[in-house]
Amino acid sequence: VRAGSSGGQAGLTHLKTFKLTIAYDGAGFVGWQRQTNGPSIQGLLEEILSELDNRDVAVAGASRTDAGVHALKQVASLTLERTIDAAALVRALNAKLPEAIRVVDAAEVAAAFHARFDSRAKTYRYRIWNAEVMSPFERGRAWHVPAPRLDVEAMDQAARLFEGHHDFAAFQAVGASAQSTERELFSSRVLAPAGPLITYEVRGAGFLRHMVRTLAGTLVEVGRGRQTTAWASEVVASRDRSKAGRTAPAEGLFLVEIEYQP
Amino acid sequence: VRAGSSGGQAGLTHLKTFKLTIAYDGAGFVGWQRQTNGPSIQGLLEEILSELDNRDVAVAGASRTDAGVHALKQVASLTLERTIDAAALVRALNAKLPEAIRVVDAAEVAAAFHARFDSRAKTYRYRIWNAEVMSPFERGRAWHVPAPRLDVEAMDQAARLFEGHHDFAAFQAVGASAQSTERELFSSRVLAPAGPLITYEVRGAGFLRHMVRTLAGTLVEVGRGRQTTAWASEVVASRDRSKAGRTAPAEGLFLVEIEYQP
Repeated sequence: VRAGSSGGQAGLTHLKTFKLTIAYDGAGFVGWQRQTNGPSIQGLLEEILSELDNRDVAVAGASRTDAGVHALKQVASLTLERTIDAAALVRALNAKLPEAIRVVDAAEVAAAFHARFDSRAKTYRYRIWNAEVMSPFERGRAWHVPAPRLDVEAMDQAARLFEGHHDFAAFQAVGASAQSTERELFSSRVLAPAGPLITYEVRGAGFLRHMVRTLAGTLVEVGRGRQTTAWASEVVASRDRSKAGRTAPAEGLFLVEIEYQP
Repeated sequence: VRAGSSGGQAGLTHLKTFKLTIAYDGAGFVGWQRQTNGPSIQGLLEEILSELDNRDVAVAGASRTDAGVHALKQVASLTLERTIDAAALVRALNAKLPEAIRVVDAAEVAAAFHARFDSRAKTYRYRIWNAEVMSPFERGRAWHVPAPRLDVEAMDQAARLFEGHHDFAAFQAVGASAQSTERELFSSRVLAPAGPLITYEVRGAGFLRHMVRTLAGTLVEVGRGRQTTAWASEVVASRDRSKAGRTAPAEGLFLVEIEYQP
């Protein structure tokens, strides 16, 4: 009995769980999540890993970024039966992935680790190119908002009103149905602009679908002087999607970082 | 006679000379200069302007950037018969140019202005991504030099040896035949790195063909520890192309600025 049990365990002892850190240019993908209508980052990773491991491998991502949204450090978790070290896994994946997706790091982690459920905070940046003429180098990586110059101070004041625990129902994608629309934002700031580039950075425990893009669209209304800073609070209080600004385009959104308990 | 002369002058009084400032992502172009084997920035500008002015319009560029080389602020000069103001010219050009090329500014200047002959200084940057894994956002915009970490201090020391008046024959493209290979570099520095991004910035009165890319390739030899800092001076003194480093790839090179007498 002991020998049999030991044999059964032997297979399990080979299982390795990995945490991947992944950068991608979201243009040309249907988003993180596997879908039938085009290539996804999750789908490409699962295909390569399944071939590598000779069985179906599921990859869990920390953030389900939409089509066109970019990531500097998306985090994903997966389990392999095959014996491979982290450095070799990085090389094997990058050899098969398109250049728009790069695995920048891999680390072996505890079997229980789950990229999405274990995340403690996520940071996103929304980038706006605020000049009459778009930069060729910002195409697909920033929202082009032509002149006049946005009022960045007013935008930052409004952004700070989003900090803390609120019901963000007004900032949820139409048709989305999260169980609760309450979320906590640890910080919400418009950074000091770098020339025409305005960056909104937001860090929170979790986000609703399209939430960052709708926050950004709302801040641009304030920046344009169409709405006051205080209006941003009124939009939150309304819990009414029709009161908020437009959903800013996907191409300006970057997933920056996912944080975990040390 | 007076009326006739005045009539002849009337046509000339309509001539307007413009200085254009142009940004472009060089990927997909055969370079600045019009060529038969593919689209060039000069060629596209001349086509649009000739249609606008109903005659052949020649566009003179300050720097003849090679295929794949980028520009933040290329400068070009041209003369139009049609009455148009600078702001309308910017809009007319951007409406027809591909998004990879943007006219960021236009200004009416003296008829004698020539973008190339009147330039006093040009600044270029050469960008290197020095990490095991390439960033998806630096594809086509930096030379990927994987680990080990380059010695940036040694590179900067070597770069400074290029400053001043030298015969740069060792850094000229094979087959190029400039009348003189002497050039003056006002500054030649490796900037403090930003993470894996190493930037070499060089400012001079003029440059030989492939000179910045060959200087960059030579600096990487020093950064890799294959050559000493002092070797950079020996390469200059040799006047021998075979002694210098490789010509770094075009995609890392950016034309940053052209300066003129105020």
